[in-house]
Amino acid sequence: MPLENTLQADLIRVANLLADVARPETLAHFRTFALVADDKGENGFDPVTIADRAAEKAMRTILSKERPNDAILGEEYGAQSGTSGLTWVLDPIDGTRGYISGTPTWGVLISVADETGPLFGIIDQPYIGERFTGGLGRSDVVGPQGTAPLKTIEKSSLAEATVLTTFPEVGTEQEQTAFHAVAQRAKLTRYGMDCYGYALLAAGQVDLVIEAGLNAYDIQAPIAVIEAAGGIVTDWHGGPAHHGGRALAAANREIHAEAMAILQESLDA
Amino acid sequence: MPLENTLQADLIRVANLLADVARPETLAHFRTFALVADDKGENGFDPVTIADRAAEKAMRTILSKERPNDAILGEEYGAQSGTSGLTWVLDPIDGTRGYISGTPTWGVLISVADETGPLFGIIDQPYIGERFTGGLGRSDVVGPQGTAPLKTIEKSSLAEATVLTTFPEVGTEQEQTAFHAVAQRAKLTRYGMDCYGYALLAAGQVDLVIEAGLNAYDIQAPIAVIEAAGGIVTDWHGGPAHHGGRALAAANREIHAEAMAILQESLDA
Repeated sequence: MPLENTLQADLIRVANLLADVARPETLAHFRTFALVADDKGENGFDPVTIADRAAEKAMRTILSKERPNDAILGEEYGAQSGTSGLTWVLDPIDGTRGYISGTPTWGVLISVADETGPLFGIIDQPYIGERFTGGLGRSDVVGPQGTAPLKTIEKSSLAEATVLTTFPEVGTEQEQTAFHAVAQRAKLTRYGMDCYGYALLAAGQVDLVIEAGLNAYDIQAPIAVIEAAGGIVTDWHGGPAHHGGRALAAANREIHAEAMAILQESLDA
Repeated sequence: MPLENTLQADLIRVANLLADVARPETLAHFRTFALVADDKGENGFDPVTIADRAAEKAMRTILSKERPNDAILGEEYGAQSGTSGLTWVLDPIDGTRGYISGTPTWGVLISVADETGPLFGIIDQPYIGERFTGGLGRSDVVGPQGTAPLKTIEKSSLAEATVLTTFPEVGTEQEQTAFHAVAQRAKLTRYGMDCYGYALLAAGQVDLVIEAGLNAYDIQAPIAVIEAAGGIVTDWHGGPAHHGGRALAAANREIHAEAMAILQESLDA
């Protein structure tokens, strides 16, 4: 059911408030030597930083005050149930490996979802001071060069396309093979952008972002931002991507279909 | 021979002036849809943009006025001889593939060299508004979070190191194999940073940047910035890197030696 205008405005206000409080917490430890990178150890190399925890705590404090009846799903502190039917999905530092390498490719991911999926999302890059926003009628970026609307590339063919993923290994061996089947037909493949790649897709700079092994909190904010900008995000079979796993984010339906056909052909081979 | 203080100050002043005039020229076409990417065609995919040319022209105009007796080597408009013994080396947009993908990883590279190599260099990232400077007694970064000194990581072992290169292919097949022999012994390998990777090395964020197939104008500014910050840049055999080709940029002598031994072992195999 569509949300009332006053509720929509409140969600947008609170989402921006969350991004605001996360900025100083993440920046306090970015590019410092004192950074402590824990290793969760469960899924290989997955550093967690003091900043990650501090930023999520700061955001949860805001939510407990401003939206006490909403549920929360956070990367660091897990799930908290609610009664409103709305869930805030938080990844305080998406791209921790980029973060510990000093690259401004990590981001704070904030979204709010109902039972159908994400309604509104923010990809915030605190070091650049750049905030990509989408959903509930909004779609824009505020950054060092001012404010600009977000609009994905309207028409593209794979032969002329730029494709992003964060690591050349992508995921499993099968997923890696499928990704590279797409990439080798593209004009340009680039790596290493973390969640900033989804922001670039929303901003009309690249045609495809293809990833695997994602968690729900990695992809919900990108989905909201990209779809508000005219793009499409599904799993590799065209189903919903907001539960995590494999994501195929595309600038338009044409290149989404072209990439998905190649992914499926490779997976089925 | 050491340069006089007044000459040093003048070189630093002019280098910053060059970076200042390049900023609006490069930003005018960054993330626009009207961007025209020519293909030089000689070495595969190598787009040249209107911005690239406009920025180099703006810098050459400054040099003709401020330093008329110095020589110039520029990526777009080639070599111009001089009589002072000093040469300005300019790459108006290093990382054009990053530029056309919207990633803030490209940079304006400016350096001034005498017959021994680069004396002073700037890596400027106009979109972030971040300038990394090194040489003639200077070593700092001015960016969105203010000014900070540059200092490479003082002690590192490959097993704990972060290694960067822009493309997983690196260069020739032999060069690719040698790079990955180093990378597979490192803790973390990241791609896609273009010249920004050298800036991160100078800023103490990563341990190694290893690349191949470089031109002189790709590497001279990074050499000046990294060496001023305490790092070391050579070719893969320990010789000078400022003529281009293969570069091994390291945070300290210890990890430089460790990486070079592996590169050589792989090249000799």
